[in-house]
Amino acid sequence: MSLPILQIVRRPGIIDLGWGHPDPELLPSVALKRATAQALDYFGAQALQYGFPAGPGPLIEWLTGRINEREGRATSSDEIMITAGNSFALDQVLTHCTLPGDTVLIASPTYHLAVRILQDHPVSLVPVPTDQGGLRIDVLGTILSNLRAKGHRAKVLYTIPTYDNPTGVCLEDERRRQLVQLATVEELLIIEDDVYRDLAYNGPAPPSLWSIAPPGVVARLGSFSKSLAPGLRLGWLTAGRSLVSKLAHSGLLDSGGGINHFTALVVTIVCQSGDYDAQIKHLCSAYRERRDSLLHALESHLPEGCSWKAPAGGFFVWLELPSKTNTAILRSYAESQGVGFMPGNIFHLDDRGKNCLRLAFTLYGPAELEEAARRLGMALRNFR
Amino acid sequence: MSLPILQIVRRPGIIDLGWGHPDPELLPSVALKRATAQALDYFGAQALQYGFPAGPGPLIEWLTGRINEREGRATSSDEIMITAGNSFALDQVLTHCTLPGDTVLIASPTYHLAVRILQDHPVSLVPVPTDQGGLRIDVLGTILSNLRAKGHRAKVLYTIPTYDNPTGVCLEDERRRQLVQLATVEELLIIEDDVYRDLAYNGPAPPSLWSIAPPGVVARLGSFSKSLAPGLRLGWLTAGRSLVSKLAHSGLLDSGGGINHFTALVVTIVCQSGDYDAQIKHLCSAYRERRDSLLHALESHLPEGCSWKAPAGGFFVWLELPSKTNTAILRSYAESQGVGFMPGNIFHLDDRGKNCLRLAFTLYGPAELEEAARRLGMALRNFR
Repeated sequence: MSLPILQIVRRPGIIDLGWGHPDPELLPSVALKRATAQALDYFGAQALQYGFPAGPGPLIEWLTGRINEREGRATSSDEIMITAGNSFALDQVLTHCTLPGDTVLIASPTYHLAVRILQDHPVSLVPVPTDQGGLRIDVLGTILSNLRAKGHRAKVLYTIPTYDNPTGVCLEDERRRQLVQLATVEELLIIEDDVYRDLAYNGPAPPSLWSIAPPGVVARLGSFSKSLAPGLRLGWLTAGRSLVSKLAHSGLLDSGGGINHFTALVVTIVCQSGDYDAQIKHLCSAYRERRDSLLHALESHLPEGCSWKAPAGGFFVWLELPSKTNTAILRSYAESQGVGFMPGNIFHLDDRGKNCLRLAFTLYGPAELEEAARRLGMALRNFR
Repeated sequence: MSLPILQIVRRPGIIDLGWGHPDPELLPSVALKRATAQALDYFGAQALQYGFPAGPGPLIEWLTGRINEREGRATSSDEIMITAGNSFALDQVLTHCTLPGDTVLIASPTYHLAVRILQDHPVSLVPVPTDQGGLRIDVLGTILSNLRAKGHRAKVLYTIPTYDNPTGVCLEDERRRQLVQLATVEELLIIEDDVYRDLAYNGPAPPSLWSIAPPGVVARLGSFSKSLAPGLRLGWLTAGRSLVSKLAHSGLLDSGGGINHFTALVVTIVCQSGDYDAQIKHLCSAYRERRDSLLHALESHLPEGCSWKAPAGGFFVWLELPSKTNTAILRSYAESQGVGFMPGNIFHLDDRGKNCLRLAFTLYGPAELEEAARRLGMALRNFR
């Protein structure tokens, strides 16, 4: 039997909205093929040599121009660098900016696999609750005071304030300002996972925490994984000069040069050619339609007592079911009925979220999303 | 001014043998262009989707076949995985296999930038001396006993036993067996940096430590950086099942999928097509000629009292100068005379190696290597 090429496991008969993966049909294979040939023609052997540790200049310059234009914040070349995607960037920020035993705060619920990356480092995690407006800044303030009273100081907060995974929520504007202010006073580094920014379906995304914070308070992780293709493993970060310098001068990059240099020069061509913006437009149009199809089908098919909020961007819809429903147990019954999801408890460190679940609307087309909602409704009605 | 694309800084008038970089003229741009187009035709959107965490099956299968053929050791698919190059693999092994305060042993001298990666983790480093036969296994035994007497146990040893950086030395066959035996008894994980294996100029490379060790004793880091192109940031490792499982199921790969998936599928085509073997042959022929030119020129131009050993593979010649020469001070004078090198002290944790230096013969052609040797000889004669 051949070994797998992909991470995803497709199970016949199951429409699995548990995977936060894009539809292969939507991935820009043609643009990538064109860009690679052009990159090797234009950059020649430079595309294959040890790259500049912070990432190749032309991509840094393109990103800087785009950020200035879209976020209204000038970025100097020592405040930005290329990464191998947000998971890699998170791993490296932890290696270089935390000490064993440090406290790291995480939004709760939050992206369950970011939690796994955090747990691979010798830090202790403290959850901060969220509500429909995102992270509870008031509770965060109390947690920080309590830690300080015990002689501890939290070093880092990890959060996805824009089109959150798993909830789809955007942190409210007022809370963004409060969060940045609190972090500044408390000398807390905010790791802003900003991977969904370009997937905005109801007008522009809210301002990033990074764009409204004083220099050095926020490390904002951006990525081409959702907006172009996850298999590229390419992203970037904007942060304070000292953090960028620390990462760009790490042993890893000093030894190997730019972290994903060949791919970075290929993506440079995709960006410069206009294919990147065309792809974003294409994706937003397709994902908006899928989101709307799923939301409409949930309205039609789910029983009373289920609630959700329409996400304005990103990949996910977060469902809250009647409080007695345990979605970790519901899951296998639902799969036997042909529909998959991610149970809510996975996104929490404690035992909350048991009656919640996450649905991704990116992997399947509208007809399958509607069928999935129908099956989920049936499963909920028939589940004992 | 444009931001840099490459890590290397070329200084006019200086032939800088300090850079352990390949000659851009030798990099396989044409083969890579062909392979990328074929990879996107053949694998389609699969090349852009989240990859299998241990790396794409077809590359794992090709590597396994090659290792079995060349090293005579069968590798099951749970003993191998794809990495983003040896620097990345070293970083990840440290994150996942050491605890804060653990002792890590390093050959001394050793690759200075691997030391920087080690120093980015909360471990303490203990050097193990080497001689013309490589790592001193007798001294290693004493160090391990002394550590044990103090209640410590070394967790990991990092070494480059084949065509060492910086010395070019191969660990003697008898010492390879002794090392593996000692590590087995002491439950010491050997990290074998095997990046130069395919660059063998005097017949086949000696057996890897991994190939002669019981399962689980050695993590062998292999790479396409020297044999294909460093800008790809692609490598692989063979190790015990539990280590491969730990790394392949890390939070980083669980979240992002295969670490450099797109590039891995491009390189799959390079390997399957025969272009990889053709490139190795081409590189070995070019580097053998360059090594020989440099060695011949050193014979002609260096004054009395300098010694070196012809390396049988890899990138480097290690020079030992008269004991009173301090190469860290010589360096700027030599550069003023148009020749660069890496001073020996950089490769040691203590103050040894001051009268040594490392020359790379990979970046320049034979004529420039000869001229560099001539300038170095002049510099040594005139330096006060």
